[in-house]
Amino acid sequence: MTLTMAATYVNGVPGDVIPASDRGLLYGHGVFETIAIRNGRPEHWLRHMTRLHAGCTRLGIQPFEPALLAAEAESIINGTDEGVLKLIVTRGSGGRGYRAAGSTGCTRIMQLHPWPEYPASCAEEGVKTRLCDIRLGRNPALAGIKHLNRLEQVLARQEWNDADIREGLLMDADGNLVEGTMSNLFMVSNGVLMTPDLSRCGVAGIVRTIILELAEQQGLDSRITHIGQEALFEADEVFLTNSLIGIWPVIAVGETTCRKGDITTQLQGLLADTTNSGPAWRA
Amino acid sequence: MTLTMAATYVNGVPGDVIPASDRGLLYGHGVFETIAIRNGRPEHWLRHMTRLHAGCTRLGIQPFEPALLAAEAESIINGTDEGVLKLIVTRGSGGRGYRAAGSTGCTRIMQLHPWPEYPASCAEEGVKTRLCDIRLGRNPALAGIKHLNRLEQVLARQEWNDADIREGLLMDADGNLVEGTMSNLFMVSNGVLMTPDLSRCGVAGIVRTIILELAEQQGLDSRITHIGQEALFEADEVFLTNSLIGIWPVIAVGETTCRKGDITTQLQGLLADTTNSGPAWRA
Repeated sequence: MTLTMAATYVNGVPGDVIPASDRGLLYGHGVFETIAIRNGRPEHWLRHMTRLHAGCTRLGIQPFEPALLAAEAESIINGTDEGVLKLIVTRGSGGRGYRAAGSTGCTRIMQLHPWPEYPASCAEEGVKTRLCDIRLGRNPALAGIKHLNRLEQVLARQEWNDADIREGLLMDADGNLVEGTMSNLFMVSNGVLMTPDLSRCGVAGIVRTIILELAEQQGLDSRITHIGQEALFEADEVFLTNSLIGIWPVIAVGETTCRKGDITTQLQGLLADTTNSGPAWRA
Repeated sequence: MTLTMAATYVNGVPGDVIPASDRGLLYGHGVFETIAIRNGRPEHWLRHMTRLHAGCTRLGIQPFEPALLAAEAESIINGTDEGVLKLIVTRGSGGRGYRAAGSTGCTRIMQLHPWPEYPASCAEEGVKTRLCDIRLGRNPALAGIKHLNRLEQVLARQEWNDADIREGLLMDADGNLVEGTMSNLFMVSNGVLMTPDLSRCGVAGIVRTIILELAEQQGLDSRITHIGQEALFEADEVFLTNSLIGIWPVIAVGETTCRKGDITTQLQGLLADTTNSGPAWRA
């Protein structure tokens, strides 16, 4: 079955509206996951559930029931082979003011979107990127979480219109690279895999974690560290990751070009194996 | 007429739901105003409209029609003497992904809430506050705007339960005071009025601006500057401002006590005059 339009469930029921009093709207008080549906199953489901649960805990949102979400996901996927499942959990409604009062409920929103048709060349040959002007604010209390306060990414994405530029890279106030607007960033220098430290800002992506695990399994030296512009421009390989794109090699950062390398190609193959041979998605 | 429950308009029509695809929910892509309704009129309406318009411009939301908002506000206020008008303008719906695509529309949400019954002692005698642990991230591109990315304030407000503590004060990563969770911060030292610089984070409140104008009119020396903890603890007077509370003197920051001073009392009187004698609210 091929999906052509978005479908939405709110709290398990087909419907596409939420209360205007929802704290997800008022304050961005919620978290989300963007999950690839391929071959009729949500990829890395348990990893997404684990991160969602951790984000809820950090934001004071009561833990949801994973089995309930899995049943709802199965219902909305309903035989769709390929698509994108966006799952949002907010703190629900509760009073005017920053303090969550009244009901301790949460709102669950599931949206099933068509699969984005990225050109095959993005993964095979690589993509052009640019350095964004906007810098990410540091906030250790929010770092790593995929929360609903995403204005920095919105403003970053407004910086360019050139369809040839597939991603913008973001730095913090000190000029350390952090991530892309919708992806995590990796580079390889002298055989060492490196990705930015996300303890102060950034989203800890599911595929980022998988890549670090794969590197360890392969005996590839990897480091989570601070990466400045100079190190990026001198890297042997640069690539981007997220749950939909997998791995995209970077062939340009602004005017500086680079080429797809062997470690990137190797990791693309290993990542494809994990998504094709994962465990049954419903635990 | 006394309001006991919230009323909501969405795009000018009574109703309390928004699309689950609204970018206000997905990314916090929007701005809001919290407007005091007293004596049947929205206080400082034109100032709120000016700030709302500026915020929309900075976030790439198309300018709305002020006359339309005024007509809708009049309709929802509908003779209510006292209340709180919360006005939210989002980027509306438009695709999955950070880039605003498709329709260039916006969503207007107006919520009329009952007036919060703060004890008279808060303004007359003062309030106790605390220093929050969470620090505000720096982001000049978002600084000053009253946008919908408010997780820092939500987390700050979760730090305490003591109903006797009326507000938490927030610092940036360098330990500079910035604001309260729902208010702006002022202090007086040696006859000089001071309030934190908001060029890197914080919300530029309507009453904050009015206080600075009143100070100038009175020939009171005032400074927008960096204020560290030490300066705060040594201040002669400390007070908080927002559109609902007006001015609340601070009588304690954690274990450190202070007392309501003459300049605070003078500014309270001057502020009351501005709200009682403002221009006709509909331009």
